[in-house]
Amino acid sequence: MKIAVLGTGMVGQALAGRLNELGHEVVVGTRDPQATLARTEPDGMGNPPFKAWHGQHPGVGLATFADAAAASELVINATGGAATLSVLEQAGPDNLAGKVLVDISNPLDFSGGFPPTLFVKDTDSLGEQVQRAFPDTKVVKTLNTLNANLMVRPKDLGADSTVFVSGDDPVAKATVSELLTNFGHSDVIDLGDISTARGTEMLLPVWLRLMGALGTPMFNFKIVR
Amino acid sequence: MKIAVLGTGMVGQALAGRLNELGHEVVVGTRDPQATLARTEPDGMGNPPFKAWHGQHPGVGLATFADAAAASELVINATGGAATLSVLEQAGPDNLAGKVLVDISNPLDFSGGFPPTLFVKDTDSLGEQVQRAFPDTKVVKTLNTLNANLMVRPKDLGADSTVFVSGDDPVAKATVSELLTNFGHSDVIDLGDISTARGTEMLLPVWLRLMGALGTPMFNFKIVR
Repeated sequence: MKIAVLGTGMVGQALAGRLNELGHEVVVGTRDPQATLARTEPDGMGNPPFKAWHGQHPGVGLATFADAAAASELVINATGGAATLSVLEQAGPDNLAGKVLVDISNPLDFSGGFPPTLFVKDTDSLGEQVQRAFPDTKVVKTLNTLNANLMVRPKDLGADSTVFVSGDDPVAKATVSELLTNFGHSDVIDLGDISTARGTEMLLPVWLRLMGALGTPMFNFKIVR
Repeated sequence: MKIAVLGTGMVGQALAGRLNELGHEVVVGTRDPQATLARTEPDGMGNPPFKAWHGQHPGVGLATFADAAAASELVINATGGAATLSVLEQAGPDNLAGKVLVDISNPLDFSGGFPPTLFVKDTDSLGEQVQRAFPDTKVVKTLNTLNANLMVRPKDLGADSTVFVSGDDPVAKATVSELLTNFGHSDVIDLGDISTARGTEMLLPVWLRLMGALGTPMFNFKIVR
């Protein structure tokens, strides 16, 4: 499948690399490709610049948000929550229309320090905001409840765990669930329509506290039943 | 141990019955014991009146919130979130002072219908509100993330799952963790101070959606790591 991954950070890199490895035609979207490739410093989290990762993944393309989205059949939003609506606007409603949009973002607000709070919650969600802003796009919220490495290689945990999908379009959720299965996810729970993204986005506070208590981001929720 | 269980609903009954079975001296607290025993109608959820349960558990006492708390070494708040602060005020700060208070409540607001929203979240929690209101009491938030039956009989699931504790007092958390172990919990994660209750209370929205998606409340979170 032709897939656009919007975002050049750790989440975007993990998704783009794994999808390319699985045989998909992947283009990473960024605001300004030249500027992205010109960065030589690690990011704020100490991760190497995109150019270093890109050198190891020559099969992955790099383009503007709009060009990446236009060339793709399926689009993945791997940008931070605060940037999400602006990035999707740059990708362009026409380039997203009729397509499945996988939304991995979380509405984290770091303005008050760590742990972050949520800038939308409980009576609304970022997933719903995206769906309302792009009504012709089939938004599926998923993968926002685990670490980037585990998103694409869940078997690294050594035991089965769970991922969730939320969205209004059953066919879009089936397409995304198949991608998740190809990543190695063996337990995909369909929570219902896009409003159920409120639930998974509100998992972030306990996820962050668990990371602190366990001293690692390498864990995931499993729904035992 | 002498334990007071505040609340006569399904959660209070599950806790009181199981603690009594494990050999503890249990008194259930209610606003008006005579009125509680006089009820002959099922509650709003279709559960039998307290009197029927009490007839099957003759070893469990029934008293006012204040008398139950006064007679106990450890107090469990098994009332609904909306009633919690008022009930604890009736139990009395002096009767709670110096004691461990296990808080199981969730800040659910049903005023807008189902699913409920949370009346406190993200930058504060009901657990913190209780701790602030009763500074001489050692509040431990736990068990608010699973069904009442599974709280006290987690092995009914057939596979291990996780419960969380949040609180400012390490000794109080150790006492509560031992009770949890006696119930059958094999994975108790100490998330940290009482502010980490924000995380577990914010699990409720996804819990409620999972109950809808799975068609049963008999499930629990496990943290796979």
